[in-house]
Amino acid sequence: MTALRLAVAGLGTVGAGLVRLVEREADLLELRAGRRIEIVDVSARERGRDRGVALDRYRWHDDAVAMARSTEADVVVELIGGSDGPAKAVCEAALDAGRHVVTANKALLAHHGADLARAAEAAGAALSWEAAVAGGIPAIKAVREGFAGNEIRRVMGILNGTCNYMLSDMRRTGRDFATVLKEAQDLGYAEADPSFDIDGVDAAHKLAILASLAFGTGVDLAAVHVEGIRSVSALDIAFAEELGYRIKLLGIARQSDAGLEQRVHPCMVPVEAPIAHVDGVVNAVVVEGSQVGRTVLEGPGAGAGPTASAVAADIIDIARGNRAPVFGVPAAALQPLQAAPMDAHRGAYYIRLMVVDRPRVLASVASSLGAHGISIESVLQRGRAPEERVPVVIVTHETEERDLKAALAEIARQDAVAEPPLSIRIEAL
Amino acid sequence: MTALRLAVAGLGTVGAGLVRLVEREADLLELRAGRRIEIVDVSARERGRDRGVALDRYRWHDDAVAMARSTEADVVVELIGGSDGPAKAVCEAALDAGRHVVTANKALLAHHGADLARAAEAAGAALSWEAAVAGGIPAIKAVREGFAGNEIRRVMGILNGTCNYMLSDMRRTGRDFATVLKEAQDLGYAEADPSFDIDGVDAAHKLAILASLAFGTGVDLAAVHVEGIRSVSALDIAFAEELGYRIKLLGIARQSDAGLEQRVHPCMVPVEAPIAHVDGVVNAVVVEGSQVGRTVLEGPGAGAGPTASAVAADIIDIARGNRAPVFGVPAAALQPLQAAPMDAHRGAYYIRLMVVDRPRVLASVASSLGAHGISIESVLQRGRAPEERVPVVIVTHETEERDLKAALAEIARQDAVAEPPLSIRIEAL
Repeated sequence: MTALRLAVAGLGTVGAGLVRLVEREADLLELRAGRRIEIVDVSARERGRDRGVALDRYRWHDDAVAMARSTEADVVVELIGGSDGPAKAVCEAALDAGRHVVTANKALLAHHGADLARAAEAAGAALSWEAAVAGGIPAIKAVREGFAGNEIRRVMGILNGTCNYMLSDMRRTGRDFATVLKEAQDLGYAEADPSFDIDGVDAAHKLAILASLAFGTGVDLAAVHVEGIRSVSALDIAFAEELGYRIKLLGIARQSDAGLEQRVHPCMVPVEAPIAHVDGVVNAVVVEGSQVGRTVLEGPGAGAGPTASAVAADIIDIARGNRAPVFGVPAAALQPLQAAPMDAHRGAYYIRLMVVDRPRVLASVASSLGAHGISIESVLQRGRAPEERVPVVIVTHETEERDLKAALAEIARQDAVAEPPLSIRIEAL
Repeated sequence: MTALRLAVAGLGTVGAGLVRLVEREADLLELRAGRRIEIVDVSARERGRDRGVALDRYRWHDDAVAMARSTEADVVVELIGGSDGPAKAVCEAALDAGRHVVTANKALLAHHGADLARAAEAAGAALSWEAAVAGGIPAIKAVREGFAGNEIRRVMGILNGTCNYMLSDMRRTGRDFATVLKEAQDLGYAEADPSFDIDGVDAAHKLAILASLAFGTGVDLAAVHVEGIRSVSALDIAFAEELGYRIKLLGIARQSDAGLEQRVHPCMVPVEAPIAHVDGVVNAVVVEGSQVGRTVLEGPGAGAGPTASAVAADIIDIARGNRAPVFGVPAAALQPLQAAPMDAHRGAYYIRLMVVDRPRVLASVASSLGAHGISIESVLQRGRAPEERVPVVIVTHETEERDLKAALAEIARQDAVAEPPLSIRIEAL
């Protein structure tokens, strides 16, 4: 069988890692794929940069889009990144020319996934994106193929390694957010501008495309409710521990009576749940299917090796002639997304108040909750300090988010309540 | 596209579950597979039995082998079980007639996997076995496709739900093996004759075929070192806890300097490891690859739903036209297995002795270990009871199994040592 030829656009850590993998493991890949896999074209911004791999045996292109248009390769691997600009143009040009595309680009798919899926189908080409979600974990393959006999009930995960590293570190050391962020930046786990990670944007991109695949709907990034981890404090992490929970930034998509919930926010999860023990720069994906029940897949979510592993898996599938629809079903069959409003979310909540310690404060807080139909599971109040500020923690039974918000607005207006109430959703597991 | 037709051999829990799935989720399966999936033929031992599904719309066969030979179905699903007899004959007849085979039968594959793989390749047919290992977890797909760009370094797992349930229960309740086994039998988690599970035979079948896939070697069940969990005591579980370990029955395949290790035995794993927290009737598979690092997949390892989910995934792959070699590479490319002798295993060990509490006992035990080049990491001795029997626990640094055995034989001969020494391997994670 003839070799499968690759054109690689983008030679950062992952791109260079892929070139190294294809060179070093050529015989292994051939054995597993049933044919030789060869790089023929490469493109990046700076030709001269030292990437730790020799590129002189490949045709160099300054212009990745021109390469995608003119290459004789069977597959264009897009590792440029970014939701628009050259990454998008490269994928479009490649599909337009009938070439398969493998990409690690979650931002691109979150913004233009449905259009690109249609273009791929029209061209009879693959558009593969295992590396875009959860790095080296074969989560996309699991949902698209391994669980194809299931109706998916809920899919969720720790989708951002930076946030998980920071929350794990805060719990382990008791340090506050700002200190841990500074250190994560010094160690290279967080960017100089960390907002893409810590505000939940990256996780939202991944959730939007994962949800599209799991629920057979069009990708709808705008429908994802996004909260990051800036508001998570050492105090709340300590209270969570005391209550038998861990705080994780989760991306969750769930079918509810109100429609499809898609949300990224800090969650409390029971300490017995496997996902509570996923610490550090690691990702995890939990899938709940009608047949299989609950499964958990965890592993390295980023880095050259894991990402190149996922890209290589997509390439080998293409080499073997194996195909599945981009988002699990034909693009024309993707249902428009019926988004559940966040106000309709039902669940238990952790509420933490800073109140002035005086008689009857708790009674009036409880009364506001009761007036909105919210019942209390437990209350935690530490020490006494008359007329000083003290934290009060309340865990509610399941309630609707709109009622919780109304109750908290009322509570915030009470004299003894010294700061805006803080709440964290508790995810049932 | 024409429908994909199935013939189902074996209508126990899983078979009936599959029939139900194919009927209830017909539209979903069609959407995902790109074509209709229909059952045409069924076979089981007793026609009259109530299975909770109506079978009158399918052609009934008393003889599954005759069905496999004569059916017009595209795929024969073998759910009879057993390493030989009708299960083997059904698979051979189906492949011989050029039909695809989907099976959940680990015993069959562990005994005849390489032969069946060759027969499938010769027939140009699929032989798919996702359901044979780790139930609903898509572990086979992960290793064969998701990690196809990796050299696998180690693959291991909790492969038997019964044993994991029992060990979890022993730890949680502090009860001994016999009591927990009795209860597991009453609850239906363990068979009346439990030896297939608790002596590690079932886990060995699964490990042998998983190792073949991961390392590209012929299946070699005889090369698997097997120990079950009968020797695990409440005492050792408590000591493990105190030392920061959990005891799990693991199946482990690892490439070492001495060859391929394949072993099933009780292991101590560090309590921080994700696999330490996989409790109950659950399976988990850990894969370590050259690119991806370490990933952990966990979920329900048995039962009608999870097993039917895995069988359905294989069927959908066949419907989509997706193929991969049965054991990851063409059967002719499978390397003969270079088995590492167990004596050459290197690792740390937990040793528990019952000794008569008198002066210098520990010194002479330590001296025997030292004479065989074994160094001690820690010693645990609780309380004092002069001239009574007391447990002494020793954790060693990494050593070779042959040295450990020689040292323990010597220790067993010491006067103050009241019972044969017990040892448990500690698995580095």
